[in-house]
Amino acid sequence: MTGSTAASFTADDYRARMERAARTAAEASLAGLLVAPGPDLVWLTGYTPPAVTERLTLLVLAAGQDPVLVVPALEAPDAHRAPGAPALEAPDAHRAPGAPALTLRDWTDGKDPYAATAALLDASGRFGISDNAWALHLLALQQAMPGSSYASLTEALPMLRAVKDAAELDLMAAAGAAADATFEEIRNVPFAGRRESEVAADLDRLLRGHGHEQVDFTIVASGPNGANPHHEAADRVIARGDMVVLDFGGLRDGYGSDTSRTVHVGEPTDEERRVHAIVREAQEAGFRAVRPGAACQDVDRAARQVIADAGYGEYFIHRTGHGIGVTTHEPPYMIEGEERPLVPGMCFSVEPGIYLPGRFGVRIEDIVTVTEDGGRRLNTTTRELVIVE
Amino acid sequence: MTGSTAASFTADDYRARMERAARTAAEASLAGLLVAPGPDLVWLTGYTPPAVTERLTLLVLAAGQDPVLVVPALEAPDAHRAPGAPALEAPDAHRAPGAPALTLRDWTDGKDPYAATAALLDASGRFGISDNAWALHLLALQQAMPGSSYASLTEALPMLRAVKDAAELDLMAAAGAAADATFEEIRNVPFAGRRESEVAADLDRLLRGHGHEQVDFTIVASGPNGANPHHEAADRVIARGDMVVLDFGGLRDGYGSDTSRTVHVGEPTDEERRVHAIVREAQEAGFRAVRPGAACQDVDRAARQVIADAGYGEYFIHRTGHGIGVTTHEPPYMIEGEERPLVPGMCFSVEPGIYLPGRFGVRIEDIVTVTEDGGRRLNTTTRELVIVE
Repeated sequence: MTGSTAASFTADDYRARMERAARTAAEASLAGLLVAPGPDLVWLTGYTPPAVTERLTLLVLAAGQDPVLVVPALEAPDAHRAPGAPALEAPDAHRAPGAPALTLRDWTDGKDPYAATAALLDASGRFGISDNAWALHLLALQQAMPGSSYASLTEALPMLRAVKDAAELDLMAAAGAAADATFEEIRNVPFAGRRESEVAADLDRLLRGHGHEQVDFTIVASGPNGANPHHEAADRVIARGDMVVLDFGGLRDGYGSDTSRTVHVGEPTDEERRVHAIVREAQEAGFRAVRPGAACQDVDRAARQVIADAGYGEYFIHRTGHGIGVTTHEPPYMIEGEERPLVPGMCFSVEPGIYLPGRFGVRIEDIVTVTEDGGRRLNTTTRELVIVE
Repeated sequence: MTGSTAASFTADDYRARMERAARTAAEASLAGLLVAPGPDLVWLTGYTPPAVTERLTLLVLAAGQDPVLVVPALEAPDAHRAPGAPALEAPDAHRAPGAPALTLRDWTDGKDPYAATAALLDASGRFGISDNAWALHLLALQQAMPGSSYASLTEALPMLRAVKDAAELDLMAAAGAAADATFEEIRNVPFAGRRESEVAADLDRLLRGHGHEQVDFTIVASGPNGANPHHEAADRVIARGDMVVLDFGGLRDGYGSDTSRTVHVGEPTDEERRVHAIVREAQEAGFRAVRPGAACQDVDRAARQVIADAGYGEYFIHRTGHGIGVTTHEPPYMIEGEERPLVPGMCFSVEPGIYLPGRFGVRIEDIVTVTEDGGRRLNTTTRELVIVE
């Protein structure tokens, strides 16, 4: 089945993205880009193979030549249905308008797809390759072209997918609104006496009900479980007096949502209120640091400073944020040492937290997009401490 | 959440697998194995990270040292729950018996996990690395250890997971029986007048009902769609007179099922019966070629010969089979050129097919395991042409 973004973009959109990617690669002195199935390929062509296997599927973008998608012959009929690809038979009523944006080159079992790929490339060139390309394929390419060298796409062109266009921002906003609608419903379900996994199932159902075709995480971390930022949801029965970290998201129409709110079952203690208020202030400080030209690390620093000043620095044990788009986790990263500038159209999370081992955790997260003069939140539910039952 | 095989095996089982893998690597002149999240890691440790991200999780097996699992600090609590890992606090009622089989080494955001990994390794060694390890990680390791070299695990130790032990064979047989039970029910559902996608949804529901926690494919390829071996299921309404290829499977208790039967809606034509009979004979010939010491390619040749002799050679456009275990698609491959011998305990598909473009396709597939003196089918539903309504 092809990716769910297929309906939203035309062959022209994909052609423009591929041209931009090839141009950016050439500017970075790369001889080409090697794009594996996954978010890079979906973003560039709209194509998702029926399964990711050991059979090579690779989009080859090289300066001065038309894009070529190397596909297993078995999957060629699927690839022909991708919006950027030539139709098997024209006319096809389901086809996006515009001429095909790429050429398919299929290979049959038993043939060497790496030799076929190498024939398309400068054998002594340096290439950007998708982060998630399989080692199996990279090693075979290195062997087929001993003079070639490689950089991961995140390293070589980290911001390739980072800046969203207007149509993408609309999809991001719709995904954010769906996550917000999910929070407005989940805050009214019963918490006390139910297992984390039951509330997580509610989150899954609500996200899907609000249009998500893919749910990536439904974290429900109550009481001491909240002190593990990546705790998913377990058998623990939520009790009155628990802090509960909720962190949920996925893909809606091919674009990501990701929001966290920390709620409390019944009346919180003064300490719980204080820690929540510190995280809220840190999240606000991170958000206020968002503007074109600021460095990614400035967002991290702004949020971290608030928590450090309050004496909880050692309990904020992760970076402040990550990019989001056709995945829920991608560059740019809001982390110390990331000096690249924010650019209008970038979308990322601002999600500081405090994690007190054995006791509780608090995290507050919005997706933020960079505007011409600052930032805009794509999540707008209250960041006050919500009391649930 | 940890992998679903966790319940079936103990820390001792995982320790034995890791020891065997390290020994096999040393015999192959490898300085160690680098195991990425996915089937290799599940098989060796029972651990599945909460998500596969750009953060490095890597099991390091090197001759003469204890296994080390490099994990992001955020995910360390999850890793501690893996059956092969040391518990965070002892005693843990959910823990499998036996001493921990590996050591965890966690790293925090902003630190360099590749330098930490390199410190565990012979920097000029040759390593086997999981096929599906991300290029991002492989490139960083190559950079951290410029004198190192790598081979994919499939290339270096293709048969590492191929031979199943008795407990694994029981799980494989149970998965096969569940797929067979699914076929016995699906043959009685209505086909004519329903969309392929509706029958596929039935297959999904039945597989889960028979204990599958993961469904990998539910191919329903009717009429001309049957001529695409990887067609999944689409909007096409199945009609009387259609051949319908059904190919379905997934994971049950962490082990794979995969079976294909081709059914006919109402009475078949003579040609349809003839093509089906040829594929059935080819499948039988492939099965009869299975015995210890035979080469993998012998299975492919035996099945292919039947189809070629019948004049349909050009319409059998894929290899005859693939291995199966903790994935539904792995070595050994039954393909021309694969000269490695079959060994008792190996499990793989035997699935020849004939694909007539624009008309119909036929495929018949059983999972077969190699016994001491031949082969044993793990799928036993009838291979006669079943008529459905």
